[in-house]
Amino acid sequence: MAALLDPRTGLPVVGMVGGGQLSRMTHQAAIALGQSLRVLATDPAESAALVAADVRLGDHRSLADLEQLADGATVVTFDHEHVPTEHLHALEAAGHLVRPGPDALVHAQDKLVLRRALDAAGEPQPAWAQADSADDVAAFAAEHGWPVVLKTPRGGYDGKGVFVVSDAEESGRLLDRHGTLLVEARVVMVRELSAQVARSPFGQVAVWPVVETVQRDGVCAEVLAPAPGLSDELATAAQELAVRIADRLGVVGMLAVELFETADGVLVNELAMRPHNSGHWTIEGARTSQFEQHLRAVLDYPLGDTRMTAPVAVMANILGGAAADEDWTGPVLDERIHHFMAHWPDVKLHWYGKGQRSGRKLGHVTALGGDLTTVRARAAAAARYLADGVMEAPLRS
Amino acid sequence: MAALLDPRTGLPVVGMVGGGQLSRMTHQAAIALGQSLRVLATDPAESAALVAADVRLGDHRSLADLEQLADGATVVTFDHEHVPTEHLHALEAAGHLVRPGPDALVHAQDKLVLRRALDAAGEPQPAWAQADSADDVAAFAAEHGWPVVLKTPRGGYDGKGVFVVSDAEESGRLLDRHGTLLVEARVVMVRELSAQVARSPFGQVAVWPVVETVQRDGVCAEVLAPAPGLSDELATAAQELAVRIADRLGVVGMLAVELFETADGVLVNELAMRPHNSGHWTIEGARTSQFEQHLRAVLDYPLGDTRMTAPVAVMANILGGAAADEDWTGPVLDERIHHFMAHWPDVKLHWYGKGQRSGRKLGHVTALGGDLTTVRARAAAAARYLADGVMEAPLRS
Repeated sequence: MAALLDPRTGLPVVGMVGGGQLSRMTHQAAIALGQSLRVLATDPAESAALVAADVRLGDHRSLADLEQLADGATVVTFDHEHVPTEHLHALEAAGHLVRPGPDALVHAQDKLVLRRALDAAGEPQPAWAQADSADDVAAFAAEHGWPVVLKTPRGGYDGKGVFVVSDAEESGRLLDRHGTLLVEARVVMVRELSAQVARSPFGQVAVWPVVETVQRDGVCAEVLAPAPGLSDELATAAQELAVRIADRLGVVGMLAVELFETADGVLVNELAMRPHNSGHWTIEGARTSQFEQHLRAVLDYPLGDTRMTAPVAVMANILGGAAADEDWTGPVLDERIHHFMAHWPDVKLHWYGKGQRSGRKLGHVTALGGDLTTVRARAAAAARYLADGVMEAPLRS
Repeated sequence: MAALLDPRTGLPVVGMVGGGQLSRMTHQAAIALGQSLRVLATDPAESAALVAADVRLGDHRSLADLEQLADGATVVTFDHEHVPTEHLHALEAAGHLVRPGPDALVHAQDKLVLRRALDAAGEPQPAWAQADSADDVAAFAAEHGWPVVLKTPRGGYDGKGVFVVSDAEESGRLLDRHGTLLVEARVVMVRELSAQVARSPFGQVAVWPVVETVQRDGVCAEVLAPAPGLSDELATAAQELAVRIADRLGVVGMLAVELFETADGVLVNELAMRPHNSGHWTIEGARTSQFEQHLRAVLDYPLGDTRMTAPVAVMANILGGAAADEDWTGPVLDERIHHFMAHWPDVKLHWYGKGQRSGRKLGHVTALGGDLTTVRARAAAAARYLADGVMEAPLRS
């Protein structure tokens, strides 16, 4: 079947479900490839809806709205995991290309499905069980010790839906509220890593260097590329693990494998099958960004070169801070951007255009260079200034 | 006066006159800064109109259409030089910010005005005169020799409006057709260079390395950054010349100074006060692209770091070739892009989404690396394949 192409340009139209910053940055990449991303957004003020030419307003839980996105699109893809699986099957049955497909995507949607699949594949992961009752949790803890980690199988992100629990009573309350949960042994970890890979329908894969993700309060704060001090052996093992998972699950598009590094190696935490916060550094830090690569992969284009453009790249998220408070009396956003640009002329800004709320991911900055300590300090200070309006004196020199 | 800001984001709205590829690429840069470019396009199928969220359809020669663009915009700027000067004054009189302003922009619009200003400033340029009659041309040629170069003062670009003339009779015919012309001595040149500088209203300037522009049939084919073999002395002289011109003319935004390199130094050919084809390489090849820098400059934001990201960057234009012919039977565009990506995974594509016509600038590619010969060969071969469908065998290895 010949691909559906935009008659105005002779080029594909990618429809992306979700109007957040991942769609926004994918639109930037689409523009370079001669395309214009079609976005399904729930609100005209969403991040991607503010900048894309072809915005369809609708709900990702409505099949009719998804069909509106898919009609005339070459392929449908996602900036989040929240589309019901049955809708994805319905789109495929109607002849639309859905990438990643529902049978792959479910492993990023449902943590219990993921745990079963990784066990079947013999891949390393934390000890786990399905918990339907407080007794199930107590039995698991008897073997693996308290505290345990309880997770909602679906719908969690950025630390939401994850609970560290020290007794059966508390787990019972969570089970009453959420229904069936995933229970995991608490991992004694060195740090968190992320291995990103893109895979095309043809089966071509491309990997980036493994990165360290620094979390604060369950939310990604910084990404260090490449992961400092990671042995070549462990880096290769993590990349091979990501490629094996992408192949086995039939992933098409970007796959981020979030990993716990332990004294014994790496364990799989969870998967994302889309551009991911751990890959934002690739916009400036790699020859091909994760956003361009996701488009290439879902369109079955050959994949781009993933080499780094500098020895070190550090991405720091701008999380809504003091400057997002209603009673903020310091410099407003536009003034903070002036000061940011004056102070860090080499640090690249990505502001998402969203309303400023405490804790919300409002943007990110990326710094490149040769020395990790300097690069990381500059990225972190720039992000902190934009979020909190605080200029850190020791970093001014 | 506080700047006008988009109430949805708290950030500026730049209105750009013109819907071509320069607006398209400026929109990509605007997205990173939290903005969304507002575009005045003449047709919804124009390059930028296909990808921007805020497109106003109208004519740049209509004051009413320009006012529609300016109303609610923080600043008005341009992707071409064709807006009538009196309209720019009218916009300023109505309280709109116009950058670059009409008194600067006229030097990029009218080559006679430019020649007078450069003489007044004592800057190096070819011998020239205003020609109202064939006798004026003959008198000029008597002093400087035939052939001479006749140029229409306004409206020329990409070699259009430029005539190499060998006798008075032919110059008479051109004067009859075009009215007053600029006559210039034909320069014996080594090559063409371009010096780009950005200047903010505050007066901050930022310069990129001087580049060599390789022209074919009067159209830019390749840009080599930095200009190979250029002495530090001449590179610095060209950069200082560009900064002096920007300051003297009060340019705000990007300024490209197109130069002839001769045995005795550099001569100014013409100016562009906008992002320019000679700076497309900065998207991947410099920390701050000319598109982001233009936005920073017209908004009076501090300017970004202009350091190169690799020792060598080469941009090659994709000019409509054999594959744009109506009787083309080779791979269609989408197939050519597949082959391009397979063959040159490290070369970055920018396709403008325009209709394919012979000779038209349809896109460009940029290659980075350490060795000019290799990088240039890869960029040129990739561009040629996309334009003509010809894969050059010697470059396949």
